[in-house]
Amino acid sequence: MIIDVHGHVTAPNELYAWKANLLSHRGAHGGKAPAISDDRIREVHHEPHPSFGDVSHLDHIDGAGVDVQLISPRPYQMMHSEQPAKIVRWFTEETNNIIHRTGELFDGRFRGVAGLPQSPDLKPEEWVGELRRTVTELGFVGALLNPDPHEGTAVPPALGDRYWYPVYEALCELDVPALIHAAGCRPPAREPYSLHFIQEETVAIWSLLSSDVLKDFPDLKIVVSHGGGAVPYQVGRFLPSGVRAGGTPYLDKLRRLWFDTCLYTQEAIELLVKVVGVERCLFGTEKPGTGSQRNPENGRWFDDIHLLVRDIDSFTEADREAIFHKNAAALFRL
Amino acid sequence: MIIDVHGHVTAPNELYAWKANLLSHRGAHGGKAPAISDDRIREVHHEPHPSFGDVSHLDHIDGAGVDVQLISPRPYQMMHSEQPAKIVRWFTEETNNIIHRTGELFDGRFRGVAGLPQSPDLKPEEWVGELRRTVTELGFVGALLNPDPHEGTAVPPALGDRYWYPVYEALCELDVPALIHAAGCRPPAREPYSLHFIQEETVAIWSLLSSDVLKDFPDLKIVVSHGGGAVPYQVGRFLPSGVRAGGTPYLDKLRRLWFDTCLYTQEAIELLVKVVGVERCLFGTEKPGTGSQRNPENGRWFDDIHLLVRDIDSFTEADREAIFHKNAAALFRL
Amino acid sequence: MIIDVHGHVTAPNELYAWKANLLSHRGAHGGKAPAISDDRIREVHHEPHPSFGDVSHLDHIDGAGVDVQLISPRPYQMMHSEQPAKIVRWFTEETNNIIHRTGELFDGRFRGVAGLPQSPDLKPEEWVGELRRTVTELGFVGALLNPDPHEGTAVPPALGDRYWYPVYEALCELDVPALIHAAGCRPPAREPYSLHFIQEETVAIWSLLSSDVLKDFPDLKIVVSHGGGAVPYQVGRFLPSGVRAGGTPYLDKLRRLWFDTCLYTQEAIELLVKVVGVERCLFGTEKPGTGSQRNPENGRWFDDIHLLVRDIDSFTEADREAIFHKNAAALFRL
Amino acid sequence: MIIDVHGHVTAPNELYAWKANLLSHRGAHGGKAPAISDDRIREVHHEPHPSFGDVSHLDHIDGAGVDVQLISPRPYQMMHSEQPAKIVRWFTEETNNIIHRTGELFDGRFRGVAGLPQSPDLKPEEWVGELRRTVTELGFVGALLNPDPHEGTAVPPALGDRYWYPVYEALCELDVPALIHAAGCRPPAREPYSLHFIQEETVAIWSLLSSDVLKDFPDLKIVVSHGGGAVPYQVGRFLPSGVRAGGTPYLDKLRRLWFDTCLYTQEAIELLVKVVGVERCLFGTEKPGTGSQRNPENGRWFDDIHLLVRDIDSFTEADREAIFHKNAAALFRL
Amino acid sequence: MIIDVHGHVTAPNELYAWKANLLSHRGAHGGKAPAISDDRIREVHHEPHPSFGDVSHLDHIDGAGVDVQLISPRPYQMMHSEQPAKIVRWFTEETNNIIHRTGELFDGRFRGVAGLPQSPDLKPEEWVGELRRTVTELGFVGALLNPDPHEGTAVPPALGDRYWYPVYEALCELDVPALIHAAGCRPPAREPYSLHFIQEETVAIWSLLSSDVLKDFPDLKIVVSHGGGAVPYQVGRFLPSGVRAGGTPYLDKLRRLWFDTCLYTQEAIELLVKVVGVERCLFGTEKPGTGSQRNPENGRWFDDIHLLVRDIDSFTEADREAIFHKNAAALFRL
Amino acid sequence: MIIDVHGHVTAPNELYAWKANLLSHRGAHGGKAPAISDDRIREVHHEPHPSFGDVSHLDHIDGAGVDVQLISPRPYQMMHSEQPAKIVRWFTEETNNIIHRTGELFDGRFRGVAGLPQSPDLKPEEWVGELRRTVTELGFVGALLNPDPHEGTAVPPALGDRYWYPVYEALCELDVPALIHAAGCRPPAREPYSLHFIQEETVAIWSLLSSDVLKDFPDLKIVVSHGGGAVPYQVGRFLPSGVRAGGTPYLDKLRRLWFDTCLYTQEAIELLVKVVGVERCLFGTEKPGTGSQRNPENGRWFDDIHLLVRDIDSFTEADREAIFHKNAAALFRL
Repeated sequence: MIIDVHGHVTAPNELYAWKANLLSHRGAHGGKAPAISDDRIREVHHEPHPSFGDVSHLDHIDGAGVDVQLISPRPYQMMHSEQPAKIVRWFTEETNNIIHRTGELFDGRFRGVAGLPQSPDLKPEEWVGELRRTVTELGFVGALLNPDPHEGTAVPPALGDRYWYPVYEALCELDVPALIHAAGCRPPAREPYSLHFIQEETVAIWSLLSSDVLKDFPDLKIVVSHGGGAVPYQVGRFLPSGVRAGGTPYLDKLRRLWFDTCLYTQEAIELLVKVVGVERCLFGTEKPGTGSQRNPENGRWFDDIHLLVRDIDSFTEADREAIFHKNAAALFRL
Repeated sequence: MIIDVHGHVTAPNELYAWKANLLSHRGAHGGKAPAISDDRIREVHHEPHPSFGDVSHLDHIDGAGVDVQLISPRPYQMMHSEQPAKIVRWFTEETNNIIHRTGELFDGRFRGVAGLPQSPDLKPEEWVGELRRTVTELGFVGALLNPDPHEGTAVPPALGDRYWYPVYEALCELDVPALIHAAGCRPPAREPYSLHFIQEETVAIWSLLSSDVLKDFPDLKIVVSHGGGAVPYQVGRFLPSGVRAGGTPYLDKLRRLWFDTCLYTQEAIELLVKVVGVERCLFGTEKPGTGSQRNPENGRWFDDIHLLVRDIDSFTEADREAIFHKNAAALFRL
Repeated sequence: MIIDVHGHVTAPNELYAWKANLLSHRGAHGGKAPAISDDRIREVHHEPHPSFGDVSHLDHIDGAGVDVQLISPRPYQMMHSEQPAKIVRWFTEETNNIIHRTGELFDGRFRGVAGLPQSPDLKPEEWVGELRRTVTELGFVGALLNPDPHEGTAVPPALGDRYWYPVYEALCELDVPALIHAAGCRPPAREPYSLHFIQEETVAIWSLLSSDVLKDFPDLKIVVSHGGGAVPYQVGRFLPSGVRAGGTPYLDKLRRLWFDTCLYTQEAIELLVKVVGVERCLFGTEKPGTGSQRNPENGRWFDDIHLLVRDIDSFTEADREAIFHKNAAALFRL
Repeated sequence: MIIDVHGHVTAPNELYAWKANLLSHRGAHGGKAPAISDDRIREVHHEPHPSFGDVSHLDHIDGAGVDVQLISPRPYQMMHSEQPAKIVRWFTEETNNIIHRTGELFDGRFRGVAGLPQSPDLKPEEWVGELRRTVTELGFVGALLNPDPHEGTAVPPALGDRYWYPVYEALCELDVPALIHAAGCRPPAREPYSLHFIQEETVAIWSLLSSDVLKDFPDLKIVVSHGGGAVPYQVGRFLPSGVRAGGTPYLDKLRRLWFDTCLYTQEAIELLVKVVGVERCLFGTEKPGTGSQRNPENGRWFDDIHLLVRDIDSFTEADREAIFHKNAAALFRL
Repeated sequence: MIIDVHGHVTAPNELYAWKANLLSHRGAHGGKAPAISDDRIREVHHEPHPSFGDVSHLDHIDGAGVDVQLISPRPYQMMHSEQPAKIVRWFTEETNNIIHRTGELFDGRFRGVAGLPQSPDLKPEEWVGELRRTVTELGFVGALLNPDPHEGTAVPPALGDRYWYPVYEALCELDVPALIHAAGCRPPAREPYSLHFIQEETVAIWSLLSSDVLKDFPDLKIVVSHGGGAVPYQVGRFLPSGVRAGGTPYLDKLRRLWFDTCLYTQEAIELLVKVVGVERCLFGTEKPGTGSQRNPENGRWFDDIHLLVRDIDSFTEADREAIFHKNAAALFRL
Repeated sequence: MIIDVHGHVTAPNELYAWKANLLSHRGAHGGKAPAISDDRIREVHHEPHPSFGDVSHLDHIDGAGVDVQLISPRPYQMMHSEQPAKIVRWFTEETNNIIHRTGELFDGRFRGVAGLPQSPDLKPEEWVGELRRTVTELGFVGALLNPDPHEGTAVPPALGDRYWYPVYEALCELDVPALIHAAGCRPPAREPYSLHFIQEETVAIWSLLSSDVLKDFPDLKIVVSHGGGAVPYQVGRFLPSGVRAGGTPYLDKLRRLWFDTCLYTQEAIELLVKVVGVERCLFGTEKPGTGSQRNPENGRWFDDIHLLVRDIDSFTEADREAIFHKNAAALFRL
């Protein structure tokens, strides 16, 4: 059995055309979402998609043997930094609704991970209403948490700052994990969104581990996407100062977090598991997505991460089971 | 015969979903436009549209007896203030391409009016390449000119400023008119885009008439949309200072410009014609669009402006012909 | 009988020389106003003024048959955006004092409409003290309300925002109308103050009607100057969305406001009355002022608006009485 | 004989009322100055003035035995930081014109020192036209130079910066001195304009002496107002670093400048002369002005600086003659 | 006996190398101060120092006959404007600790005057903890107060503003004087720190005397460094407006403050004493420091201010005693 | 034989105390560097250092068998963002001088890698003078290149921007490599400098490979510090888009750069070599530095990277030789 904790919704063009409209009228036409039929939602999961190697969402996950996929909004579409805040709220809610309907239309093959309306013009207290709605009313099992709601246009408080505590409180109260995942990245930042994800994950781990968050919220569950940004690779850099500072060793602190395997190379996945321990690793593919391209060298999809996991000799079967589904099932209570 | 000088393109959702994508990846996926088939373009002109009173574009203009419609990009979608500038350029070009294809697919019933890539991060010199392309290669007959490329987020140079001269030079050289029409309007501005149009038209007329533009470019042809914003109604306000200043009387200066009839009430159209003279008025409807709603009092579409023009007793048949097509045919050399 | 609701004080040079001094010393010389004798105040009303066609204030209103004129500060002199706030307060108070003395010296021919110290560095709560003082101590019958205290240098909260509620509360409590009238307009804005008035009136109507203000303050009386900016002319633009939104028709909402006739052309006044109804129109001239220039075509003063009202054939005598004095007498309880 | 090098024009209220108007319309009414008759100019010099101890300008200088007074604009009225730049230009020119007419009306008792249109939005190259006009056409003998055209709202380049070289070049070419004198001082600065003068003079001396200006312009003549700000009193602070740096001793550099005696206490004048040498001191009173108040202890006007100079025992008659007129006559070629 | 109220600590390079480190790691290495031995502290007081004319701190004060010196942090090193605030706090505390240890190691020859952690990112309430610690735990006798914690990069509230009241309250409660003394001065300001001291002292006196501070805190003791900036020299400038305003004469208000003699020229010291009265003058040298350079004309150290005081003929012996020690002993309760 | 390409200078406290002084006087004391004797330079290399585990620089590199170490300024001390620019220049030059002297004093055991005065207030053209001086006059073999001269306070142009071309031109002309290495990191950024290094290296690689730099400068040699930030670990993320884009495969582009081994864990070094190829890896330790702490688990220094390299079974001896010295000797022409 395979649970993929890192999938994103495939939604019909109607949703995005409506989004383009929101960004053009900036709320003047109101927030009424377009009528999107169940058929259209089903259809787009069966349609080959040019961005995904001309293969459909379902074919992708079927081909990878994914039994259950946790799906959240396409992060780079979340538009947290757009104004006014109400268009962020409207688009987030409707995207979550589409996710919910997708789950229902495909009989539970998909489970929802919520986007939050993280507009910097709203207070974090105002973001958590949508977290509550999606978890308690729609049965979602977690939420994305974007460490940079400004999307590269300003510097937000670090995740260790008390600014974020209302979100942590709600996550603990509802007992669902947050997946650290940035959204877009706009000028004047130098990097594309895809690299911004990595940079933000790196800063996020540093921010959390150098703060009191994990002490103040001992039950908080944080999953860091894309294998933890730069941290597992650069972890040697943090060990000496950890020793100097005394207290909990750095690696023990790092292992308070979870990480997905969304890394696309065998070496990286192997390094990740060595550094953070197999019990902290969750199978995640972001499939279909960035990696949905066939590798000309071997014909495999780059995001066929299940093949990479299977090919790693140093893994035991127990390791693979833990990674493929047991860790996720326990963490998300699936 | 009726020529409608103020129409906007009806484009398939694919175009706007792609736009939403551009705004999310900010150029990281490149500028390749989606493949949109001729059939899809034909189709959307026959499809009833919920924003347009559940009637199709073609039904709207058929119903209004429009023989030829000049179509330009949906202005509020032009996103001039978005960054980086290249996504503005890509979207503008593709929208102009769709306009061109629409003209071809409907055998000349539509003629193109270009959007320009008016990013404030580009110099006006860099905008005019698209003007040249659309006029010389695609046969467009004019262009929109947005006096506020910042879309409400900063104050641009007034239209009388030499900043704009490269555009005026190109318009004169190509001998096509510019239609003054703002794009979007974003926070922190207080008004929605639809009102921003009016405000910008008002400022535009003031900026042009209080500057040397019309002296420096005696052949420049400027059409002010929506009946000239506030100016014809408030014209009394400008007459006394015109007398004090001496020189060309204010009304004579005003009548150097053209105006469309896109006003939706009989009183307003009548006032417009009295103030600027029938020879400066061009039939324009923005149809289908803002006014594509039936008036519950009489069942008419608000944007059935041809009915308003026909109902005005003070107009002669010659007036109506001038407004309906002769003025436009002469100005745009149709 | 004629009541002119839109007049501005004619004050001696001493007041303005003092103002220039305030703007130079920025408060360092204190706020003591210059001694201006009653004779000087009388005198300036009898002196021909070069800005007013070399005719005196009294000759102007005598010539127009104005029996009672409501006078407020010259709006473009109000300097709301100047710093520090205390010089705004000092100048506003002294101007109101001059207005009061003018009323007394001319035996009630003039009635006071207060300027408020609308410095953006003060809270609206701090503006209303002067409203109370002028109404309760000096017998003023209304106040100007400037929607843009920044005078073109920044974007203020729209009139629908709760920011403005302390003013609305005081107006209702004192039961006096507010006249929407902007003050100055400074760089970087593109328009002169005289056009800024129109733009701000346009935004003001939009801001009020798209908000809950008139619901929250059912007794609030708002008079929009200069015939309502662009709105009556462009009203067709707002009707379709009003129908789509349902609820109170747009025209009914618009008719909750009052409008003055300060428009200078017959067509515009006629359009105004048709759109908002005769019962919402108040005679206003801004005389002497912008329009105090003889029209070379007919020798009339442009601001002889009473002649325009008389010349409109479609008006009944009852209409003219309503416009000339009855509406104003009822609204201002004169 | 007494030449007072530091006087400011006494202008009729009409000039300042016009200035208030410029600041309100920001150029919209154009730059036409008010018609001010010769009689009004004569009159204001004979009128007792409440700000000047209820004594007239002429009585003040008659009482002090001033034979010739150099007059410049009232500095705190110069409004260099106001926008748009053209209103600064208009007001400066008209003030200079009034100064010129004053000189002519009083048969040379007054000589002109020009204000320059030092708007930060103009380049220094654009300021010097007015310097040329006043010197070559109106016979002015010098100009004020304001080291802070921002008037406390931003930090300008220091006087040692090449930014200022166009002014120095023109001063040298026309062979007239500049009097260092700031204009107004606005928020956010903490000090009133009167103290800003002192601060700017202090910085000006430092800026000039720590730069190459006096080397690059060996003929440049700079007079520092108000006895050189803080420098003569604090001069000991600059001597040690001068020694450390080697080269021209600091005092020798300081004595390349001139200073006026506008200090109001005997101790200060005495200190000034000791520090900079009698040959660098010019009699200056700023009279009537800040000091035009009788001292309750002795009944003298505070700005009766001639009495202070006469009372200093350590001065020889030759010293007094140098201070009272010889230095000024030579420097200004009177 | 001589008490020098204006001395600054001479600290080993280790302190400043640590400071350079703080400014480089911005807090990332934590705030642990370097271990500096008592021997190193003793040593640097005996070492000739190149910045101090190659003479040691002790030789300097021995040579000047100083019996007790009040020492505070080197002001230009205080780095109040650096971020984050914690590095300001750490460096301030450690510098105060070094001062304290210096006092102990030299048997009371030095008494401490505290630096405060005046980061603009901390509230004044947060500065006073260090004042309490140094006075109550370390026996310090006063504190420096920097009127410009932004060090030339922004404009702070003036000393008359309630912003500063928490500091005044603590000073009164602990009954210790504050010495007004700026810290550094950074771009964009035009002046070096050494001149910034003078400018800030000038503004400080104006700010205090034009406010209610001395009324609200009748027991507040303020010493203005460097002889009061420009004020005693320019005092004539403030007298007339004091007379106009009525109330306490300006000189009486000025004499509510204390001043040190740190001026380096005989004329300046003599003027100071005449203006503020001998009872308000405290001997201060800033030695070794800016003035620690031999005067090539007479071989004296510029900062041998005791010689200047002794050479002033107009002083009585009682005056000298008051200046040299009695005033200070009483004010600081030594 | 071992060549360590990533070492930083160990300089005496005098250098840093002088730096603290520069940051306090901001240039007012001039740029004269302190006299530091050869003995002091020798001494600090033999002194145990508390930040380096109480072991000296020489002991560290002796213990690690380093034969030649390339040393550059301590990056976090480079203070590129400090103002005015001249203090950056002075400090950079003096640091480079100390590096040069260190090389000479230790008979070539150390070779210089220059810091550049990368003040954002200077143009890159102005940085390269110091590159020329150090290479041609002092025999340096390379230079650090900081992709973020703002040190976290603003967003600079990406390394692919033409802004950087003057540096690339000079590097090619002098034929020396640049080592990508950031300097400090200040608020408002969230990360400490040590993590900023990693983030900047990640962005640097992206910026270079997505631009034309390597095409425009085929001979440019770039070494990315710390094993290339996040890129080798996250490389899978870049492969699919490389395939989509066509042209040179991503890995081939990546292998145009060099990387050091400064990673501190065996897994990371192994991954690096697999991803970029052994021929692109240079031995680097940053020793003594961040990693100079004994690992409590095995007693080894974390920065004993030579042990890690030796322990990796998959390396051949030829690999180790390439890494330890051959690659570096060839690249730096040692």
